[in-house]
Amino acid sequence: MSVDCALRVSPGVANVEHAVLKVRDDHAVRSDDELAVEEPLEIRLGGISLAVTMRTPGDDQELVAGFLFAERIIAGADDLDVLAHYRGPDHDPHLGNVMNVLLKGDPRVARERLRRNFVASSSCGLCGKVTIDAIQADAPPVTSDVVVPAGLFRRLERAMAAAQATFEKTGGLHAAALFDADGRLLVLREDIGRHNAVDKVIGHMVLARREPLDRHILMVSGRASFENMQKALVARIPIVAAVSAPSSMEVQMAEAADMTLVGFLRHGGFNVYAGAHRVATRAEALA
Amino acid sequence: MSVDCALRVSPGVANVEHAVLKVRDDHAVRSDDELAVEEPLEIRLGGISLAVTMRTPGDDQELVAGFLFAERIIAGADDLDVLAHYRGPDHDPHLGNVMNVLLKGDPRVARERLRRNFVASSSCGLCGKVTIDAIQADAPPVTSDVVVPAGLFRRLERAMAAAQATFEKTGGLHAAALFDADGRLLVLREDIGRHNAVDKVIGHMVLARREPLDRHILMVSGRASFENMQKALVARIPIVAAVSAPSSMEVQMAEAADMTLVGFLRHGGFNVYAGAHRVATRAEALA
Repeated sequence: MSVDCALRVSPGVANVEHAVLKVRDDHAVRSDDELAVEEPLEIRLGGISLAVTMRTPGDDQELVAGFLFAERIIAGADDLDVLAHYRGPDHDPHLGNVMNVLLKGDPRVARERLRRNFVASSSCGLCGKVTIDAIQADAPPVTSDVVVPAGLFRRLERAMAAAQATFEKTGGLHAAALFDADGRLLVLREDIGRHNAVDKVIGHMVLARREPLDRHILMVSGRASFENMQKALVARIPIVAAVSAPSSMEVQMAEAADMTLVGFLRHGGFNVYAGAHRVATRAEALA
Repeated sequence: MSVDCALRVSPGVANVEHAVLKVRDDHAVRSDDELAVEEPLEIRLGGISLAVTMRTPGDDQELVAGFLFAERIIAGADDLDVLAHYRGPDHDPHLGNVMNVLLKGDPRVARERLRRNFVASSSCGLCGKVTIDAIQADAPPVTSDVVVPAGLFRRLERAMAAAQATFEKTGGLHAAALFDADGRLLVLREDIGRHNAVDKVIGHMVLARREPLDRHILMVSGRASFENMQKALVARIPIVAAVSAPSSMEVQMAEAADMTLVGFLRHGGFNVYAGAHRVATRAEALA
């Protein structure tokens, strides 16, 4: 006998109620609690299953477009022929959790590329990439000459906190947001998966045909993560700002790709771990 | 030209110093900061590359043993013939980041199993598993009749906080710990990857031949995660406690597997999201 874990299908629903036992000082009361919805999304390319991710339902087209863009299966929205939820019979338990993709090119080429490109990250266990050499994004360093004032990052922090307050109910979701060089919030997405939030943000811009993103700032809650740095690199985003501190690997990658990596962005202060030439500070003005 | 991100090799070193620009109120000062070390670990089975994970170096044997156990490539330490770091020439850039595994059985069987078993999680982007049906752990529900007093969880919380304070310097690491039913801490591991910490904990017990774990409690910092619930299920651990709230998927899985899932464990209180029959509270005693 195997565990049969029914996968609830509720696309677009971010929270569900669930009965819990709340224990405080040995006393227990039954209560209702809101849970963040997590469901699998299966991606089919030309009808063949490619990959599945656990995600917060909603903005699935953006998620898949951003993922395919990051893996360079597509170079933009024009490479997509079909990007639509599977419409099976009503009783199909996976309804709403399967995305059909058809590309304008040869699907075998795309499938082979995706297989080679599977992304390893420290947030997942052991993922698809099978050698150390394979985990590096095959993309040239960013070349953007954008420079932003140090004070801008405080505004990003406030804008993101304000936007998140509107969205978040259960806590525990990761957020990603894209800003222009003037600090204007262009798009914000939340997801139970750190990398899904970034895929949704970049996918939004791809589907809206608003690349290139070479004068933009990607901000993420928590840690940037090596994988998100790679997604930003492929999208040519020169500046990544994160609430938490980066790992050694994220910093090495930012330096190698000439990306600006800001971390520990909180309470108005922050650290620049790489690419400080894109951050204008008073010290630099005096230097 | 592609970005060449040199992968520093420093097994056992948890932190490195890095020069940063600290910006506070528009003033910038150069300073040194400690970064959590993140490096890839490549696993080779019978000399063939199987998978790579981003991890905090250290306890690599435990990490690999725990992963192979969770994927049921091995049923215990006795299935392992060789589990040792690759010893290449001194100038090999991957030295210390490659683990050689030889099993006593047929390696082709193990490799095929691993390929089928790749784990999807909401913390990574799109990982190895390719269909929704494939993400479910093929294991029967847990059957443990262990019952623990509600007050025990407060002690776990304190024990974990105390143990983490000893280990943690840079912040940002995930922690996992295994306790027995009397609340004794058996093993605690920290890692930049949420699932690696759990693999190291379970791998420690596997290598020490201390299974079964069917009267034990797994505690994790942050969110339990669907993937860690699966690892606990395969290890037959009946109780999982997490600092953060679970997702809908984690709760559904706990219910289907008859596992006890405790979340929001902080400041002495907690919620029981599934399997409350293993938590003895005053309300239940009076009922």
